[in-house]
Amino acid sequence: MIEVAVLGATGYTGVELVRLLYSHPRVKPVYLTAERYAGRLLSEVHGQFRGQVDVELKPLQVEDLPDSIELVFCALPHGSSAGVVPKLLQRGKRVIDLSADFRLKRPVLYEQWYGRVHPAPELLAGAVYGLPELNREAIAGAELLANPGCYPTAALLALAPLAGAGLVDWRTVVIDAKSGVSGAGRSPRQDFHFPDCTENFKAYRVTGHQHTPEIEQELSALAGCEVILSFIPHLVPMVRGILCTVYLKLNAEISREQLYAMYKKFYGAAQFVRLLAPPALPETRLVRGSNFCDIALCLDERNGRVIILSAIDNLTRGASGQAVQNMNIMLGLPEKMGLEVLPI
Amino acid sequence: MIEVAVLGATGYTGVELVRLLYSHPRVKPVYLTAERYAGRLLSEVHGQFRGQVDVELKPLQVEDLPDSIELVFCALPHGSSAGVVPKLLQRGKRVIDLSADFRLKRPVLYEQWYGRVHPAPELLAGAVYGLPELNREAIAGAELLANPGCYPTAALLALAPLAGAGLVDWRTVVIDAKSGVSGAGRSPRQDFHFPDCTENFKAYRVTGHQHTPEIEQELSALAGCEVILSFIPHLVPMVRGILCTVYLKLNAEISREQLYAMYKKFYGAAQFVRLLAPPALPETRLVRGSNFCDIALCLDERNGRVIILSAIDNLTRGASGQAVQNMNIMLGLPEKMGLEVLPI
Amino acid sequence: MIEVAVLGATGYTGVELVRLLYSHPRVKPVYLTAERYAGRLLSEVHGQFRGQVDVELKPLQVEDLPDSIELVFCALPHGSSAGVVPKLLQRGKRVIDLSADFRLKRPVLYEQWYGRVHPAPELLAGAVYGLPELNREAIAGAELLANPGCYPTAALLALAPLAGAGLVDWRTVVIDAKSGVSGAGRSPRQDFHFPDCTENFKAYRVTGHQHTPEIEQELSALAGCEVILSFIPHLVPMVRGILCTVYLKLNAEISREQLYAMYKKFYGAAQFVRLLAPPALPETRLVRGSNFCDIALCLDERNGRVIILSAIDNLTRGASGQAVQNMNIMLGLPEKMGLEVLPI
Amino acid sequence: MIEVAVLGATGYTGVELVRLLYSHPRVKPVYLTAERYAGRLLSEVHGQFRGQVDVELKPLQVEDLPDSIELVFCALPHGSSAGVVPKLLQRGKRVIDLSADFRLKRPVLYEQWYGRVHPAPELLAGAVYGLPELNREAIAGAELLANPGCYPTAALLALAPLAGAGLVDWRTVVIDAKSGVSGAGRSPRQDFHFPDCTENFKAYRVTGHQHTPEIEQELSALAGCEVILSFIPHLVPMVRGILCTVYLKLNAEISREQLYAMYKKFYGAAQFVRLLAPPALPETRLVRGSNFCDIALCLDERNGRVIILSAIDNLTRGASGQAVQNMNIMLGLPEKMGLEVLPI
Repeated sequence: MIEVAVLGATGYTGVELVRLLYSHPRVKPVYLTAERYAGRLLSEVHGQFRGQVDVELKPLQVEDLPDSIELVFCALPHGSSAGVVPKLLQRGKRVIDLSADFRLKRPVLYEQWYGRVHPAPELLAGAVYGLPELNREAIAGAELLANPGCYPTAALLALAPLAGAGLVDWRTVVIDAKSGVSGAGRSPRQDFHFPDCTENFKAYRVTGHQHTPEIEQELSALAGCEVILSFIPHLVPMVRGILCTVYLKLNAEISREQLYAMYKKFYGAAQFVRLLAPPALPETRLVRGSNFCDIALCLDERNGRVIILSAIDNLTRGASGQAVQNMNIMLGLPEKMGLEVLPI
Repeated sequence: MIEVAVLGATGYTGVELVRLLYSHPRVKPVYLTAERYAGRLLSEVHGQFRGQVDVELKPLQVEDLPDSIELVFCALPHGSSAGVVPKLLQRGKRVIDLSADFRLKRPVLYEQWYGRVHPAPELLAGAVYGLPELNREAIAGAELLANPGCYPTAALLALAPLAGAGLVDWRTVVIDAKSGVSGAGRSPRQDFHFPDCTENFKAYRVTGHQHTPEIEQELSALAGCEVILSFIPHLVPMVRGILCTVYLKLNAEISREQLYAMYKKFYGAAQFVRLLAPPALPETRLVRGSNFCDIALCLDERNGRVIILSAIDNLTRGASGQAVQNMNIMLGLPEKMGLEVLPI
Repeated sequence: MIEVAVLGATGYTGVELVRLLYSHPRVKPVYLTAERYAGRLLSEVHGQFRGQVDVELKPLQVEDLPDSIELVFCALPHGSSAGVVPKLLQRGKRVIDLSADFRLKRPVLYEQWYGRVHPAPELLAGAVYGLPELNREAIAGAELLANPGCYPTAALLALAPLAGAGLVDWRTVVIDAKSGVSGAGRSPRQDFHFPDCTENFKAYRVTGHQHTPEIEQELSALAGCEVILSFIPHLVPMVRGILCTVYLKLNAEISREQLYAMYKKFYGAAQFVRLLAPPALPETRLVRGSNFCDIALCLDERNGRVIILSAIDNLTRGASGQAVQNMNIMLGLPEKMGLEVLPI
Repeated sequence: MIEVAVLGATGYTGVELVRLLYSHPRVKPVYLTAERYAGRLLSEVHGQFRGQVDVELKPLQVEDLPDSIELVFCALPHGSSAGVVPKLLQRGKRVIDLSADFRLKRPVLYEQWYGRVHPAPELLAGAVYGLPELNREAIAGAELLANPGCYPTAALLALAPLAGAGLVDWRTVVIDAKSGVSGAGRSPRQDFHFPDCTENFKAYRVTGHQHTPEIEQELSALAGCEVILSFIPHLVPMVRGILCTVYLKLNAEISREQLYAMYKKFYGAAQFVRLLAPPALPETRLVRGSNFCDIALCLDERNGRVIILSAIDNLTRGASGQAVQNMNIMLGLPEKMGLEVLPI
């Protein structure tokens, strides 16, 4: 068995990693950390694991990591991660970082959107952006992998086939995104207090969400030009799931059939993208707990607008499932290994 | 007391009408019909009314309506309404119709979007579209009032000030709308079965929702040109509430302050539109059970896109509350009468 | 208009008081306090009040209360209340205290169940327990009224008619209670974080909930003997509502019809208790936002057990609605005034 | 691979069977039936299976079942099952029936509680009641296994250790049970229509639920005397999960420690019962999607009452997971096989 560690094992993405890694046939998570709960059992903090993962949580000390560990999942909060990752690399560990700290190539963007100076800008150039459908080869050799954000995953998978084809009129692109509450993490807050959160729907951080530059960076790379778009997130009273509704106009006339053909070709080999045949549309419950991204393509014939819908589970495909997928690629394992379990 | 009737009193909009009318100081609902439950008490069907509205439900027979009734609320399903309204008008009753049957001016659009020939096209010209903020004067004299749809109410209030000003580049307009489940009515269906509906988010009738031509008709009238836009509805796992996120670009450069000033002026006298000062954003729970429409204006400075957010309660402002507001105008009563109750 | 104050106006019970008092035809809340938000508008903290209750929140200074205020609602946390109430009484204000501080007659029980020494035990004897159906006369003359807890309200209304009749075998009484999340207040906590709270059901404080002695105290007084029972609360993933399922055996054989007759007689004059005719059963949504307590009586004929079901809205009948009902009685106003609004 | 069939594969228990069986390392579901959707793909009806279980659904014809199939899961509605099972047995198939048709030993009880004459009473004597912790040996040899109901599973696991010990005063036993909505099946109905069902809590079939005689039958067998108790089910606005709160008094004095010791001994070998150490209490989300039953024991010291809390997932341990556990025992496979996946 290949040994791995999970730093930050009690947050929602950490718990989702544990869920997936403990079912993985070739990998064993032997080291779980959680500052706040160090010394307690994971199953005391997350009772669903009782009798299954009764492992003691460790404090986060990079020097204590066993030599036998090949790869480390870093599921720490944004900002904390950048302080730990350099030490992990120095110890020769390969790292999959689930925070936002190594996703943006330009430190100035990090400073602008995350509100702090990047603590390890020298590592940004070497970090590999881990969206497997776009980047499989680079991922295979990555020492430091930046696991994509949840919204960027859903948005980029919706747009990637068109972006590379030079067909998009980028001035027209709007991404209207909706997420379940687990996307905001496990820390209690007034907005996410049950009585304030259920039976409510709202937008938040309109025009200012920190996932915007991440989406634009990757689309710009695909399109070969600077992409600036509008990304507006909303909060849905449910736990898991993201639905992106992407609006755009094309530079050329193209039928829905041609669109489907283009996407089919682009995602032909991809094992975790499901292109839905019309009239089926993505629903977040249909991807809950799975690593799939479901995509449908619509054409508003009255005005020529293309509408792309994509759905993922924000904790699985949008975080920990994709991290396992990336790990499989990095370790030369079959890409679907440990991710084929049927969801509830 | 002015006597009124409610046809179709046991559906969600009918029940919401009863809730509002029984608190109204000048109006008395003396006649409630419900085909399916005729002969039973309303409070047997809707137990919340026990001890408060223990009224017997009648079968729907226009000829049985007491002469004393001045105004009739028609909360019947789309299609049924058009069969009943002509008889009500012949009996000299003023009618507020909550169905879609008299909203579209052009019978061909009704046929195209609702899938049937309009049964009473001769009444369309005389029907008044009941959005008070746009149409107060005509409403006052209406014999047949077509109460707006829930989505059109939220979308039109978001767009109306800009539409009339000739500032909108209509090719850029996208309305991404999200609604609670009560908008689909009270009849059980697989989609709305609790286990299939909760913890789920999806779009539906993408590019084909029947509220599209209603929105376009009213915006075209305001703009003085033919408006064609994209309207995409989504289903939120909550009971009540609509949030519209409207995207557009302008023909001229304009600051957020100027936008606010324009909206402030347009809605200066309006008692049920709340323009939110930045950084506040609309949330559906903040209008639940009330007749308010909350609106916020945002500017995506990086690409010049305007984003307008509007929130209503789909059953109150999007249906029955607006119907009462229209009734007040038709009867010469203060517009807020019976609608000032503070919501939960 | 009679002027009143609300101390602690931004918690859930405070907000519910504001909702009810602003619709009250004879009473005006002129003074609202909230330590944490002093200086801000109530409508900034609770956006649903925008345009309706744009009142500035004050810091809590008893000496600053205007002389014109006749009655003060104290919606402060348990413990804080007992520090403020003596000063209010000294200033000659009548007080309705919504905390638990003045409900228990014996300071030793307060210490035992609330974990602190009672700060004003000398006031306990004079405080009136405000369950109107049991205590209307004393309430009318109260200077200090202890508003009942949410669970005790539902439990006592279920049991009161039998308790006084000497028919209950008290060794058999079990109260299995279920409450929505708003009962736990507005402060965020891990348990009530949306993703941890929705799609979950659990018991809590089994055999140790602080409402137990309050229920027993009032039943003992009615029964004329010391009552000791089992009270087990559970948390339901919804915002509002309590359902109590009460199990007991009787000392004598009695039919369901006789039981109903006994309850009908007991609650004959009560305006806020609805005795449901079989086979109807209470549901929390049918009392949401209202001051009603719905009650049904069942008999398990196979073993002679009586099962009583009662439902209330924990924030209305279980707190603020009952407080307004008590205020009406104290001020000699009609008991239903301001409480007749039909709920959503 | 051992081949099995699932009759009724599109209902909630059928889908849960498919989820579990497709992850099972030794068993292959090769034949799925669904009258209503025959000829369509399972993944068309339940989109979560797209790309994973794209199997065609068959009409239900017992004669068409391949000879290679060893065991048949019958997830048909109550009543339908009894018509099919005899034919399956005649064809030499072992049967796990998830309906209620073969759980009650006495046909007269079936008639009384299910409202129809039993269509195959001659099979009742030979049917094995499939609660593995009570009945492992008989299960191993069963030809017709009656899979327990969801409520009986939770109730019996809570009570079994005490029942056999002769310690229970049966006149005192109350089972207050709470279930998520999936327990009512997949057919739409007004009660389960999202807007009527969410934000609501209620009891139903008080004293008349058909699981009562099933619970009593098994407890009577354990206790060696006729058990008559009170069982009251409630509906929780969540999808999955049952919590039972069981109240009883003992014939002898016994400490909580002794109680725990007794349960520990009874369930020592059981792999799917988790006895929670105080102060932990069961929560339905902690068993969601798993085959565990979590149990806690409390003692109300003030009155000597024992309170037992048990939680299961009604679709997994309460139906399909337990069916797979029974299959494992019948086929001589390790009891946990295919059931060890970590839940979400």
